[in-house]
Amino acid sequence: MTLYFEDVVLGEDQVLGSYTFRAEEIKQFAGRYDPQAFHLDEAAAAKSLFGGLCASGWHTAAVWMKLLVDHSYSGHEGSEPRFGPSPGFRDLKWLKPVYAGDTITYRTRNIETKALASKPNWGLLESLNEGHNQDGALVFSFISQVFLRRRESTRID
Amino acid sequence: MTLYFEDVVLGEDQVLGSYTFRAEEIKQFAGRYDPQAFHLDEAAAAKSLFGGLCASGWHTAAVWMKLLVDHSYSGHEGSEPRFGPSPGFRDLKWLKPVYAGDTITYRTRNIETKALASKPNWGLLESLNEGHNQDGALVFSFISQVFLRRRESTRID
Repeated sequence: MTLYFEDVVLGEDQVLGSYTFRAEEIKQFAGRYDPQAFHLDEAAAAKSLFGGLCASGWHTAAVWMKLLVDHSYSGHEGSEPRFGPSPGFRDLKWLKPVYAGDTITYRTRNIETKALASKPNWGLLESLNEGHNQDGALVFSFISQVFLRRRESTRID
Repeated sequence: MTLYFEDVVLGEDQVLGSYTFRAEEIKQFAGRYDPQAFHLDEAAAAKSLFGGLCASGWHTAAVWMKLLVDHSYSGHEGSEPRFGPSPGFRDLKWLKPVYAGDTITYRTRNIETKALASKPNWGLLESLNEGHNQDGALVFSFISQVFLRRRESTRID
């Protein structure tokens, strides 16, 4: 169930899902990938700039990926990839801390498609991704890029 | 052992460390945060565009954070944060897959410091971060940003 470049709809908000960051998971992720005291220990976090246990920014980003994948494959049969690889992202912003117990709702909106002379079988999709907490505050945003297959190659043989 | 804005050295490469991505950890990270077949299963990965089991791009990034923290706190007593929060990142590129068994060496180079009228007690440091595999190929790069405390506030009272 490939998502083709030609079928992308621009400008519509899609809700990817919501995720509650539990203290246990915050500490588990941080213990492995971001072992700073304010991600590991409530007492140290209370005394820090953040004032309470909060998730690693990379944890906030990784959860976006999880919800994107779940959302994208939901209702689709088989394990055929729906989209191609990502060359990267830009302008990632961690705007406010994500505290233990916060529920973040992630949304994505396709903002731009690019046809590429260098890749006639693929097009590039750029999407603006945002995460808001339960109080409606924007905590996370970035622009993702992903390659999507074209229905027909644009290569001229 | 705070790292102060005034003490930043620009332009020098620092090796943060090397990390071998084991199949088991690749699958564990992906199962939680990026459950696509080519990150979860060798047979499916062999048939995919990647041709073999490879790490989630977010896993590659999370390991950078782990090595940065280990490197930054190494030899420093206490749990006082060495640097301030990060407002975000830009221009992250996943240039080649990181396959199971690959060893990635991460380096960082401070490229720019910015004094900010809006934050008289902090300055912003930008660093170029790169990861190369065991064959010397660049697989990962991005520009990080982090706030560092100033030795003296630039606020005029």
